[in-house]
Amino acid sequence: MTRVVLGVEYDGSAYSGWQRQHHADTVQARLEQALAAVACHPVTTVAAGRTDAGVHACEQVVHFDTHATRPDRAWVRGVNTHLPGGIGVRWAVQSVSGFDARRSAASRRYRYLLVDRPTQPVLLRNRVGWTWRSLAVEPMQQAAVALLGEHDFSSFRAAGCQAHHPHRRVDALGIHRRHGVLVFDIRANAFLHHMVRNMVGTLMRVGAGDHPPDWVGQVLAARDRRRAGVTAPAAGLYLVGVDYPARFGLPVPPKGPVFALAEGDE
Amino acid sequence: MTRVVLGVEYDGSAYSGWQRQHHADTVQARLEQALAAVACHPVTTVAAGRTDAGVHACEQVVHFDTHATRPDRAWVRGVNTHLPGGIGVRWAVQSVSGFDARRSAASRRYRYLLVDRPTQPVLLRNRVGWTWRSLAVEPMQQAAVALLGEHDFSSFRAAGCQAHHPHRRVDALGIHRRHGVLVFDIRANAFLHHMVRNMVGTLMRVGAGDHPPDWVGQVLAARDRRRAGVTAPAAGLYLVGVDYPARFGLPVPPKGPVFALAEGDE
Repeated sequence: MTRVVLGVEYDGSAYSGWQRQHHADTVQARLEQALAAVACHPVTTVAAGRTDAGVHACEQVVHFDTHATRPDRAWVRGVNTHLPGGIGVRWAVQSVSGFDARRSAASRRYRYLLVDRPTQPVLLRNRVGWTWRSLAVEPMQQAAVALLGEHDFSSFRAAGCQAHHPHRRVDALGIHRRHGVLVFDIRANAFLHHMVRNMVGTLMRVGAGDHPPDWVGQVLAARDRRRAGVTAPAAGLYLVGVDYPARFGLPVPPKGPVFALAEGDE
Repeated sequence: MTRVVLGVEYDGSAYSGWQRQHHADTVQARLEQALAAVACHPVTTVAAGRTDAGVHACEQVVHFDTHATRPDRAWVRGVNTHLPGGIGVRWAVQSVSGFDARRSAASRRYRYLLVDRPTQPVLLRNRVGWTWRSLAVEPMQQAAVALLGEHDFSSFRAAGCQAHHPHRRVDALGIHRRHGVLVFDIRANAFLHHMVRNMVGTLMRVGAGDHPPDWVGQVLAARDRRRAGVTAPAAGLYLVGVDYPARFGLPVPPKGPVFALAEGDE
């Protein structure tokens, strides 16, 4: 058996999330069908992160085992010919000893894109979150500091979350405005269900001036989901990358694309 | 009668272009239906630029005349409630004396976004052009100089172009790579049918190394469409703005969003 590792990009707006389900169109099901067509046997994949319905990936990392002997390009270009337009394999590496896409991951990186302007950004429909309220970046940056480090993130955890415990370690949480779009970059060892979207929804309350920055630390300390803000829309969320120990020698491909926006300037 | 001017944004991927047609879904038809619902009478619009099927607009400028007396917000938020998700009015100005969206325009600005990488950019499907060939920016920049100024652009004109003559004045043609995306910014007094896409398709041949930079000047001088490159895909083209004399006092809203791409960096 050969273990194959893939870097996969997808537009989540057409799918009911990553994970295979009965009676729902999912990224995993589409990818496994395409892989089976190339492998000539059924394939089961394991992914680094199980993204929700509507959530995108710039680089989801996936592994599977196969009896088939194929060149790397068959697992990229060959598989891509069997995939719908919204899913694409970017790279493939074979025979990565001891690698597991989920268990070997040291950290995951997500990016949330949010547009704050009076009218909906129609060119970015299904690609960004949107609020008609103007948000100030600096108070959100101040508030985000409280979320760094290892904490019980129960206040930002969805009711249906299946994780064994609510402790996670947030290594970085950067917020900046770039070409008129608010960009939230979050890296953590792992994430609870809806954790990024609940953090963004909570920080938005601070950016809008409803609460002072230190309110976010109080929400965290309360360990009570009812204290935090609403869940930000799935459309703005991207799994941008997964970090693995260097010994696995995975490729570091040209990153992106993740959407940011440019002004219509010249 | 009141003349109303609108700034309109749209995702062209779902429409058969701007211009109203029988048996085809167009941006103009959708907008006129929404305007009629607010005006309570049929409305006919005139636009600055008639974009093709699949071509987007960050700021198409449109005017129409109405008997209805409505506040500005009715022509923005009110109309938006009657529009599908891929079309949005961004601003409205009323009673602009002597203004005509098409005739008053001093110049139009288009942006073309092109991704050159081995695999298709699935997150930017219907939003960028794509080529698997790597393109070098500098030779394209050198070649573009020949296209500046007033010329007979017959070599870059579609067979079905209905313009009275093939002379146009290109005021600016900038090319740069930004976050892994090639951005072509072109401003001209007006454009022939497919002119931007034919220019981009021709410059791509230079970027790929098929021809030296001075070939583009030879193509222009030949005034022969058969000499130029293929028409670049519609998906990468955006009408980013229209310039009018300052006396009309049109708003200069926060620009964009036009897509550019950011790395998946932190």
